[in-house]
Amino acid sequence: MKKTIIITAGGEGKRMHSKLPKQFTNLNGKPILMHTIRRFYRIDKNFEIILTLPEKHIKTWKKLCLDHDFETPHHTVNGGKERFHSVKNALNFSTGDLIAVHDGVRPVISRKMVENLFKEAEKKGAVVPAIEINESLRKVGKTEAKSVDRSKYRIIQTPQVFKADILKKAYQISYQKEITDDATLVEKVGHKIHLVEGDINNIKITFPRDMLLVEQLLA
Amino acid sequence: MKKTIIITAGGEGKRMHSKLPKQFTNLNGKPILMHTIRRFYRIDKNFEIILTLPEKHIKTWKKLCLDHDFETPHHTVNGGKERFHSVKNALNFSTGDLIAVHDGVRPVISRKMVENLFKEAEKKGAVVPAIEINESLRKVGKTEAKSVDRSKYRIIQTPQVFKADILKKAYQISYQKEITDDATLVEKVGHKIHLVEGDINNIKITFPRDMLLVEQLLA
Repeated sequence: MKKTIIITAGGEGKRMHSKLPKQFTNLNGKPILMHTIRRFYRIDKNFEIILTLPEKHIKTWKKLCLDHDFETPHHTVNGGKERFHSVKNALNFSTGDLIAVHDGVRPVISRKMVENLFKEAEKKGAVVPAIEINESLRKVGKTEAKSVDRSKYRIIQTPQVFKADILKKAYQISYQKEITDDATLVEKVGHKIHLVEGDINNIKITFPRDMLLVEQLLA
Repeated sequence: MKKTIIITAGGEGKRMHSKLPKQFTNLNGKPILMHTIRRFYRIDKNFEIILTLPEKHIKTWKKLCLDHDFETPHHTVNGGKERFHSVKNALNFSTGDLIAVHDGVRPVISRKMVENLFKEAEKKGAVVPAIEINESLRKVGKTEAKSVDRSKYRIIQTPQVFKADILKKAYQISYQKEITDDATLVEKVGHKIHLVEGDINNIKITFPRDMLLVEQLLA
């Protein structure tokens, strides 16, 4: 089965206190995105890797690739206004039977987790990596924040992996602001989402402190 | 108002792949617990600091204090079988009007957050530090894991701060396994829990990767 990896990179890095979009931030000598792309390539050289970037950043990216002699094979497609539109554009381009959608700012990807996700997606159609919550959790209401049982909740990571027909069908529905990830969209069109064990080191770089940790994990 | 800090340190460090209980793990030259205690002391030298330790670890702790010339004032009390019993023992010993309960393995505490918590606790009786969730969230059911709106949930940290009478009253109820933190107990006896802005660097050391990050944050 042919496998596609769609890597989304539309963030503006507001929480990183940086002018550079966070996906381009330097991490151990090269932009975060190059680590992410290279990690996937090293797991399987046959992955079709598609990077979505806002149009205004594509020139910057091409220049960064030249500056860093970055030659890991990948396709670059124009991102849309929101993440939703970016993935939709990438789907039009993709040729895989199984499609993984991944946050570009999660460069610490393990082979074991990725292989496991594809294996389960082939059987179940829609799988996401999940990790347990090791701190207390509360739900915010109108007048108070009530305790909830954390053992019933999971933090969901990426890559989220789907059979191509399921994901493409899900992306036929109109854009809805409250849909924050692909699994939620797939769920909206009636598919069950299955969980696979995630990886606590699969960090989504959001705050400056995350860079400290990821630098060490990739070193 | 007199302020007490109860620091709990009962963990066995199973997830740290270490024989040493994690609160004693070396962090930039000294055990994690010493960083935690010293941070509080530096915020306010008048804090009454009470450390709860399993009885079997008290000798080790005393020896570590001698080895590291650790003289930051604190009281050590016997922990009980579970965290619940440890805090209860510490409460019997405490003399503060406001009481903070804190995980010993969270050494990165900011003055701003601690002062803010005490200020709000004096007004509201029961406050906890909370942070937003920046990844997708799902609730695990019998047959599937359903998407939930992450914007309505918060991760709860420590120190959790209470008026002494409220916390002491809450600890009169019997031990219940499902109560994982003090706020949940206080809620059980009828008090509303108020949220104060937590700190993303206030990390609960649980996995080896957390040590990497905390070492950098404390350096």
